[in-house]
Amino acid sequence: MILSQDTICALSTPSGSGALGVIRLSGEKAITIVSEVFKGKKLENQKGQTLHFGEIVDGKETLDEVLLSVFKGPHSYTGENVVEISCHGSAYILSKVMELLLDKGARLANPGEYTQRAFLNGKMDLAQAEAVGDLIASESKAAHDIALNQMRGGFSQKIAELRQELIQFTSLIELELDFAEEDVEFADRDDLKALVNKLLVMINRLLASFSTGNVLKNGLPVAIVGQPNVGKSTLLNALLNEDKAIVSEIAGTTRDSIEDTVNIGGVAFRFIDTAGIRETEDVVENIGIKRTFQMVEKAALILLLVDAVKDSEEEIQNSITSIRSKLDGEKQFIVLANKIDQGNEQELQSKFPAGEEVIYISALQQKGLEELNDRLAVIAKEKMQSGNDVIVSNARHHQALKEAGAALERVQEGLNTGITGDFIAMDIRQSLHFLGEITGTIEIDRDILGTIFSQFCIGK
Amino acid sequence: MILSQDTICALSTPSGSGALGVIRLSGEKAITIVSEVFKGKKLENQKGQTLHFGEIVDGKETLDEVLLSVFKGPHSYTGENVVEISCHGSAYILSKVMELLLDKGARLANPGEYTQRAFLNGKMDLAQAEAVGDLIASESKAAHDIALNQMRGGFSQKIAELRQELIQFTSLIELELDFAEEDVEFADRDDLKALVNKLLVMINRLLASFSTGNVLKNGLPVAIVGQPNVGKSTLLNALLNEDKAIVSEIAGTTRDSIEDTVNIGGVAFRFIDTAGIRETEDVVENIGIKRTFQMVEKAALILLLVDAVKDSEEEIQNSITSIRSKLDGEKQFIVLANKIDQGNEQELQSKFPAGEEVIYISALQQKGLEELNDRLAVIAKEKMQSGNDVIVSNARHHQALKEAGAALERVQEGLNTGITGDFIAMDIRQSLHFLGEITGTIEIDRDILGTIFSQFCIGK
Repeated sequence: MILSQDTICALSTPSGSGALGVIRLSGEKAITIVSEVFKGKKLENQKGQTLHFGEIVDGKETLDEVLLSVFKGPHSYTGENVVEISCHGSAYILSKVMELLLDKGARLANPGEYTQRAFLNGKMDLAQAEAVGDLIASESKAAHDIALNQMRGGFSQKIAELRQELIQFTSLIELELDFAEEDVEFADRDDLKALVNKLLVMINRLLASFSTGNVLKNGLPVAIVGQPNVGKSTLLNALLNEDKAIVSEIAGTTRDSIEDTVNIGGVAFRFIDTAGIRETEDVVENIGIKRTFQMVEKAALILLLVDAVKDSEEEIQNSITSIRSKLDGEKQFIVLANKIDQGNEQELQSKFPAGEEVIYISALQQKGLEELNDRLAVIAKEKMQSGNDVIVSNARHHQALKEAGAALERVQEGLNTGITGDFIAMDIRQSLHFLGEITGTIEIDRDILGTIFSQFCIGK
Repeated sequence: MILSQDTICALSTPSGSGALGVIRLSGEKAITIVSEVFKGKKLENQKGQTLHFGEIVDGKETLDEVLLSVFKGPHSYTGENVVEISCHGSAYILSKVMELLLDKGARLANPGEYTQRAFLNGKMDLAQAEAVGDLIASESKAAHDIALNQMRGGFSQKIAELRQELIQFTSLIELELDFAEEDVEFADRDDLKALVNKLLVMINRLLASFSTGNVLKNGLPVAIVGQPNVGKSTLLNALLNEDKAIVSEIAGTTRDSIEDTVNIGGVAFRFIDTAGIRETEDVVENIGIKRTFQMVEKAALILLLVDAVKDSEEEIQNSITSIRSKLDGEKQFIVLANKIDQGNEQELQSKFPAGEEVIYISALQQKGLEELNDRLAVIAKEKMQSGNDVIVSNARHHQALKEAGAALERVQEGLNTGITGDFIAMDIRQSLHFLGEITGTIEIDRDILGTIFSQFCIGK
């Protein structure tokens, strides 16, 4: 993909009024363009990575008093000349300064174009560039940590190690090919088999980390299920209220979209509201209940809420059996005995089967919620310490790893069936290709790049 | 008012997700606090006005890769040590970095506290500090220009000139007082009278500019009036659509609140929707019409919309007379002959009285709107070139100027009635006091300062 020679500009801070707004330019002419509208020191004569106070002027008219950060390529985020203009955060000023810069020859940046340029200029690999977008979008400690580790090259290094081993492997196979007519075997086939096995173990471990990575990035789906009127909504509200303060301290804007998400122990828990489950002949209600069971399938954790006072021992056992029958082994399952404020706790406890994990709560009076929170925090901790130092959280990476693994399995098969070196070499090259796609070591298709960066916000 | 010794911090960019978010610290310990959580160069050893790349760390955990702008007092916005941390614009990261800074001893800044400190540290006077808030809030060229001129000291200089003349005057009077017993007149009373007259003219001119300043700052109120169904809403929509693009290019957030405001020729026109006017016995409808007439009173410009096809010559004349009777001389009044697409333009024109300003339009087909826009742009231009280089746009300044003027009028009266110098000196001192309140030259009451800066956003 050819790097555009344009100088791009965009508002890099969120829109809206604020004390400051930052407009960023990148490109060969970034400094020249800004110096045309800047009244202050002569920018062309300044060193890189310096700060300058002055005015943005449109002819004789002053638009704003600003602070410039000047960077000279390659020592900048994009690797090009970069100027950041820190203006007063008025929508009027920011739009006027943008207009002026466009007028002087800059072009409005596409979404993610700064980071795309950083990638194309070799400032970061593709996996690192993708992590920048994830970092900005991260809303929990877990999502943040994965993105930051990936941005700083943790994941890329792992992929580089895999590729290194594969390349060494190839060199042995290809050497053999060169001397094919002489029927020499330079590579010990047993050593080769061992190496492929080792690589497959590494790839499969990374592939396995994706379910965790996906949960950590997008939130752990939790289904709160139970019969009608056991207090599901009350519980949900109680859980949501706990957290609000943390986020609203700064944001407040995203409140709507995280309505059902709570950060506990650094992991986002996505609570899914479900229809109450009960035996019924009602067709419409049964559709709702069917959907509930679908939610149960999607969830990683099930909270079964029962009315500890009204429900009989038999009813409670039935509810548990009914839900348990829908679960596969991987899912965590906790019974929440609600409404303990209305009964004698010891009596209530006798209704619940031994060996079942039960937490006794009153959603209404917010009793026992701390215990539930602590339990969720433990689950969060387990998720975060999944034994893997590197976690795959990106679906594109997951897909590429799968393809690389499939090619390697063909190599393994080939070695076992004693296939000739040239077929093996082809599969190895394919495996290398897919690993290279992750970090962008190989030439990446223009459309794929476009898709990756179009998911970014403008200004990054 | 005593300057707080705390080091303050706040998010200075709008909340929400973006490529960048900037957190600003100010205070003696700004650099020390940041250096406790910064992994990079040793900040204490760095010069002021420098940029540094590194990481914000919480113990061993990295929160973000950031860019710091370090300023050493007094060479900073507030006059104190200032550090600006440019983070990735994730709400999670920004809240975590804020938490960390608060943990290390910074305090959350109050609204406007940075600018308040700039004032208290003598970096700007009070009128300039107030203009910073106006500048951020400005949504039109006119409002922006007034605020920027005021921020850069244009208005303050005018006030300083006034005070200078008054102080000179006082010194003459007070000299006379010192020698009161000897019955000497050092100051020529006629010269004094001339000087007071001159000062009063200056103050009155500034006072008169307030109505313009208020319009330029808050928008020129325009009432679109007319009988029901003449096309008022269609016209309003057509006018609003013209402009949207300019603002929405960047903002988009404030769209709701400017729904009825259009920037034409750099001035914000606030279009006021009114109930249709007609003769009716309906009590409720009459209340609506009464409100329309109140709107007419508040408006600076009246657009009377008539149906040029359906309305007879007599009806048109009646509408004009009815509205004209409610106007005082100052208000501009334009008749808009709507629906010209439905009739022969020459025939329609014959219905309208000569000498009345009429613009022929079709709101539906967007005909003639350009002519209307041009006319509004001329009005805007007239408003902006009101002959005054300095325009008062702040109600607090207007009030203080009024008080200063009243005191000067007492001086004038005293001079005319030959009152003794000590009474005159008292009134002059009062006039000086009120002028000093504008720029904060005199000690300002803590509560007044609090009120002024509490209207700012946090982070400025």
